Amino acid sequence: MIGIVGGVGPYAGLDLAKNIFDNTIANEDQDHLDLVMLSVPQSITDRTEYLMGRDPINPANAIARVLLKMENVGATLAGIPCNTAHAREIFPLIERLLKTANSKLRLLNMAQETVNLITSAYPEVTKVGVLSTTGTYKFGIYSNPLADAGLEAVVPDFETQDTVVHAAIYNREYGIKARSNPVTKRAREDLLTVARQLLDQGAEILIKGCTEVVLAVPETEIQGMPTIDPSIVLARKLIEVDCPEKLSKRH
Amino acid sequence: MIGIVGGVGPYAGLDLAKNIFDNTIANEDQDHLDLVMLSVPQSITDRTEYLMGRDPINPANAIARVLLKMENVGATLAGIPCNTAHAREIFPLIERLLKTANSKLRLLNMAQETVNLITSAYPEVTKVGVLSTTGTYKFGIYSNPLADAGLEAVVPDFETQDTVVHAAIYNREYGIKARSNPVTKRAREDLLTVARQLLDQGAEILIKGCTEVVLAVPETEIQGMPTIDPSIVLARKLIEVDCPEKLSKRH
Repeated sequence: MIGIVGGVGPYAGLDLAKNIFDNTIANEDQDHLDLVMLSVPQSITDRTEYLMGRDPINPANAIARVLLKMENVGATLAGIPCNTAHAREIFPLIERLLKTANSKLRLLNMAQETVNLITSAYPEVTKVGVLSTTGTYKFGIYSNPLADAGLEAVVPDFETQDTVVHAAIYNREYGIKARSNPVTKRAREDLLTVARQLLDQGAEILIKGCTEVVLAVPETEIQGMPTIDPSIVLARKLIEVDCPEKLSKRH
Repeated sequence: MIGIVGGVGPYAGLDLAKNIFDNTIANEDQDHLDLVMLSVPQSITDRTEYLMGRDPINPANAIARVLLKMENVGATLAGIPCNTAHAREIFPLIERLLKTANSKLRLLNMAQETVNLITSAYPEVTKVGVLSTTGTYKFGIYSNPLADAGLEAVVPDFETQDTVVHAAIYNREYGIKARSNPVTKRAREDLLTVARQLLDQGAEILIKGCTEVVLAVPETEIQGMPTIDPSIVLARKLIEVDCPEKLSKRH
């Protein structure tokens, strides 16, 4: 049974579950894989607030408790559909807490799996663009594992990151978190403009490192540069580990 | 904590969870309600196959087990986003099984809550149209509780039900189950045509008694006749019972 840590955020949990269903070979309800999603958002402190030092409680503790509860229900593997939870200050602590509790749950790492997909499916690529929140940018959620794999992260300069990319996600007037149905033209155009700048800076592939970026830029390539949705990568890896013969072909 | 019986079908579970999030007053992740969705589709036999006598195992047993497992994780109330599971041959048995197990879980009845909403929010209505699968039609999932409330169900004649409405959902060429992204023009037009016939037959409000009907006919009214999505009714009732101050205004 696959476990999903829900509530980080709530819609990202649904998105991961939908990606699992969409990528499963199934003709009827009964063909789908067993899955549990446990969403206790009130107990999990904000990941970015913790990383920024504005909240003293490491969300790793609450996330580990959610994972252990899901293991109790029958989950044997799990994923966390939250980019910032994959920071070096949080994710390894979750793994340690599981180990201490003698958990047998296999916890997949969404950021690492995304880098693994790039090295295996695009072996010629050396420069990887990343569009994300400023939190993901600052804490190297993707640039750290990319560097470990010998790949170069291509990111905007800090001013562009903060005033254009982060604003396209968070601005209260036109940002995607405030207006997602539909996304504003400005948010989408701003993200596409920066994506093209990353292409000009040499990016050969683009990680959409934030659920909101996926909403605004659903296309799978931009001017020939493939784009990667880490939630889909994680969903497909969860299926592959759980029941490889049910993994559908890549779209 | 709210429990959702997932896997019946998988996407209906996601839809109910999304309706819960969409109808919760929340400015950040932490404002959302605790929720668990347990999806074990392989263990739950097909509801329609059971009702039709083609499968001997009553799915009530497996559904009750899922509910008890969710209660173990902390769920105090729950819903089942499957119309056919609300048949008189299935739902009361689930309730009995919970009682036998000394469960304290409050299980809401989606069909009954839909009828309750109509009698309270539309007290002047006496005739209620229902668009559904032939299973829901045959087993009176909505017409039984409507009759109990003194309301008349307005449904197509059997031939139209089977060859037009059911086909719009199940036909392998143009049906919504086979082609939902986007729904075919034919499926949508066929459902709208029958909806208008029900209006002509006196229906004052329309229950969209099937997830697929909601996909094809998202509008909240057809020629002045309001339409009701039971998944939204159930979601709002779950929020109201769990934490009434977090229930958003009706759209």
